[in-house]
Amino acid sequence: MWLRNCWYVIAWDHEIPEVNEAQLFTRKVLNEPILVYRTSTGEMVAMADKCCHRHAPLSAGKREGDKVRCGYHGLLFDATGQCAEVPGMDKPPAKACVKKYPLRVKNKWVFVWMGDVEKADEAMLPDNFSCDHPDWVNVPGYMHYDTPYLLIADNLLDFSHLSYVHAHTLGGSVAIALAKPKVEVIDSDGQRGVKVSRFIPDVPAPPYYTRFRDFDSNLDRWFIYDFLFPSTLLMNSGGRPVGSAPDDDSRAVVNHSCQTLTPETETSTHYFFQQSHRAILKDESVRHNMYNTLLEAFNEDRDIISAQYKNLATDALETMMPLHFDTALVRFRKMLKEAVEAEQ
Amino acid sequence: MWLRNCWYVIAWDHEIPEVNEAQLFTRKVLNEPILVYRTSTGEMVAMADKCCHRHAPLSAGKREGDKVRCGYHGLLFDATGQCAEVPGMDKPPAKACVKKYPLRVKNKWVFVWMGDVEKADEAMLPDNFSCDHPDWVNVPGYMHYDTPYLLIADNLLDFSHLSYVHAHTLGGSVAIALAKPKVEVIDSDGQRGVKVSRFIPDVPAPPYYTRFRDFDSNLDRWFIYDFLFPSTLLMNSGGRPVGSAPDDDSRAVVNHSCQTLTPETETSTHYFFQQSHRAILKDESVRHNMYNTLLEAFNEDRDIISAQYKNLATDALETMMPLHFDTALVRFRKMLKEAVEAEQ
Amino acid sequence: MWLRNCWYVIAWDHEIPEVNEAQLFTRKVLNEPILVYRTSTGEMVAMADKCCHRHAPLSAGKREGDKVRCGYHGLLFDATGQCAEVPGMDKPPAKACVKKYPLRVKNKWVFVWMGDVEKADEAMLPDNFSCDHPDWVNVPGYMHYDTPYLLIADNLLDFSHLSYVHAHTLGGSVAIALAKPKVEVIDSDGQRGVKVSRFIPDVPAPPYYTRFRDFDSNLDRWFIYDFLFPSTLLMNSGGRPVGSAPDDDSRAVVNHSCQTLTPETETSTHYFFQQSHRAILKDESVRHNMYNTLLEAFNEDRDIISAQYKNLATDALETMMPLHFDTALVRFRKMLKEAVEAEQ
Repeated sequence: MWLRNCWYVIAWDHEIPEVNEAQLFTRKVLNEPILVYRTSTGEMVAMADKCCHRHAPLSAGKREGDKVRCGYHGLLFDATGQCAEVPGMDKPPAKACVKKYPLRVKNKWVFVWMGDVEKADEAMLPDNFSCDHPDWVNVPGYMHYDTPYLLIADNLLDFSHLSYVHAHTLGGSVAIALAKPKVEVIDSDGQRGVKVSRFIPDVPAPPYYTRFRDFDSNLDRWFIYDFLFPSTLLMNSGGRPVGSAPDDDSRAVVNHSCQTLTPETETSTHYFFQQSHRAILKDESVRHNMYNTLLEAFNEDRDIISAQYKNLATDALETMMPLHFDTALVRFRKMLKEAVEAEQ
Repeated sequence: MWLRNCWYVIAWDHEIPEVNEAQLFTRKVLNEPILVYRTSTGEMVAMADKCCHRHAPLSAGKREGDKVRCGYHGLLFDATGQCAEVPGMDKPPAKACVKKYPLRVKNKWVFVWMGDVEKADEAMLPDNFSCDHPDWVNVPGYMHYDTPYLLIADNLLDFSHLSYVHAHTLGGSVAIALAKPKVEVIDSDGQRGVKVSRFIPDVPAPPYYTRFRDFDSNLDRWFIYDFLFPSTLLMNSGGRPVGSAPDDDSRAVVNHSCQTLTPETETSTHYFFQQSHRAILKDESVRHNMYNTLLEAFNEDRDIISAQYKNLATDALETMMPLHFDTALVRFRKMLKEAVEAEQ
Repeated sequence: MWLRNCWYVIAWDHEIPEVNEAQLFTRKVLNEPILVYRTSTGEMVAMADKCCHRHAPLSAGKREGDKVRCGYHGLLFDATGQCAEVPGMDKPPAKACVKKYPLRVKNKWVFVWMGDVEKADEAMLPDNFSCDHPDWVNVPGYMHYDTPYLLIADNLLDFSHLSYVHAHTLGGSVAIALAKPKVEVIDSDGQRGVKVSRFIPDVPAPPYYTRFRDFDSNLDRWFIYDFLFPSTLLMNSGGRPVGSAPDDDSRAVVNHSCQTLTPETETSTHYFFQQSHRAILKDESVRHNMYNTLLEAFNEDRDIISAQYKNLATDALETMMPLHFDTALVRFRKMLKEAVEAEQ
């Protein structure tokens, strides 16, 4: 169940070798191996990592200027995916080419468009501003999951799990699970998905907040995020001392997080993420500290989701029991299913 | 081909953590993950290791008194498998529960009933007395097989293999294979299966017998066992010097063995076993020595059965050639097949 | 797509233990496990490595003179595959036997016939003379592939890949890819397949040629080979200084190579090979040096073919684009397909 007419993140931009490096970058998206490299103009291009001749991966070949030569029989492809040379032929057949994917780089995320090329639409790129913004500080993250991406989307669509999975990291209070989130549909400006808003009044600061400041009172915490097709979370979250004015962030912790899931295969997933904090001095000093907390928490997620998937492997998803927790994920899954069906 | 209305051993009782230990025990039986723990009354309970909500394993959660809380979204289940709390709901839905399995502990074997709960019948528990008896000494054993359980049952139903597979451990003489066993059907008192009796007169003592005593003559050996549904062997075996009266055990070696197979999946099996000897002084000193011999022999079995299974994987069972060896196993397989079909 | 009425190489003769060695040799061909051993007359025999009784591999048993006893229940098989003894039976059933395979040893290759026994025909053995000839020097080689054999046959049927895959080993010039080979059908004297002839005039000596001699001019190179059913390459190749007479080998390098592919399973392959050079003094000193170059090159092949197969695994072979390179392989695949269909 993959939506095709949408942008998927294939890499952080720092993962793609510089134009003068010999190494070729390849990653599988929706089960398609894709080659990404930079041309001499600095532009990045993406094409099928599979020679049209005998299907050897082009990434096993080598760069020749802005072109790539297959390492098996020497076919040469230009940056549009068109075959420019077949050794021993005067002129390559016109149809000799590999699929080219529309590619955009936005705030350090490298996106590829997996559907109809003529439908590629920049308005559908998510607003992942905090990935690359002078006011925000983060460490870019990547994890690989051996589970289908929708199980991870489920996890991100229901933060009640913070109270249990992340009791000692991001959570810190059962109150998160007890708070009832507001779930709204998003369907405008090229963006589709759900908005989830969860407020948790008067709870102790979670352990990792104390790295930013000391608190002498409980906090009001909030998590407000868009979860957009195909599977991208854009979140404003934080906490301020109980009694603060809603617009007074002088003693608050405020984070912005961008996270996105890209199916690698039916049963495995790429997970790109970052959680940013404000670029003030004390925060900067805890940049890697924060990243490690996030990584610890995301490993907790991966453990429970992998265990869940193992249990599911011998059972049907249909036998699950939807509960109040599941409002957002049920709605998102339904919308996505309809979008996929409309597309087919 | 699994019989469901019967008891399967899921563990030795020492494998289940004490009530004050945090660890939760889980094992798969007939492809179903099952959680086993002790309540404060000392009773042991078994339930599906799969939360009814999103199917996370409860064993990844934690104990709260006699209840277990799921580690994903915090559902709490009592010892009957009923959901006692859904965080954020006033009252859990009545149908929120996990399957509970009837459980009995008998002579250190922990049994679960995999069929209709109302048919669970203690009379069908096997008489595994020597697993826990003051007159008998043993070390409890467990092995894991990556083969279907019936191939191991076949092995246990035909001891002619002792002459070849265990020539240097339990066997010691080709005469075992040459002896013709008597095979009788058992179908009474809740027990079904076959009784196999094999007498081997006038053979040298097998190497491991000499750990109990010295012999200055050949022995008459015997193996008499019940092999009961679903797959449990209860065996009296031994040897006495040629010429001894049939009831004179003063210079004999007498063992009692309990072994049982529990399918984990279609292609893997749990094997619980012990072979006991009489609790007299010299025997006690060889307890672990005996266990190691048994383990060595059971590894020989696992090697040949795994090799057999590898060969079978590319071929049909139907092309096997039944020989006189196979009387017991053919009869047992037929009875079991009929029982499974009657059940369905 | 396996041709059955033909000879497949199962081993180099030095792989089969001597008659006085206890070890039993087993290898899978066309998904059938096959036992090979030498009898006391020095003859080699091949039979199914699968006891007819419960399908245990006979190779897990042991030799008794020219017979083999199964290690599970003791059935004894003679060198014709007939069961000579069932422990506990007066006389084995007449039908108790394992399949025997016709076997021939020719120039150190051990061949088994996988089809109808009565059709086994020595005329169909390939002329692998250089494997064992006083005028030729080589080191016998073996590799295992986790890919279907036809992808490796494709590779051997199109030497244009030498320019790219083996640029730094066997190739050394793009001219190899540019040269247009002549492809002819072979269908006589029991041999079927294609003959491929490729001449490359006036190119630098490839790096490994300089181990035989120093050259002060470019070479005319040639590769002339038969590629025969089921998958055997017999090749004369070499190079002589530009301007030499076609029959003047005094300053030439001349090699003869025999290579053959034996399917182990649908997705794995045994590869037996050697590349011989003339047995003159300087050559002899570079015997292992040559072998290492060959091994390095064949590892290059295995890398690219394994990568190709990984790409193919998620895609249909049908979407490949045949180019001029593929004349020989397309013709060979078509002939082989027709032969397999005719056989069935």
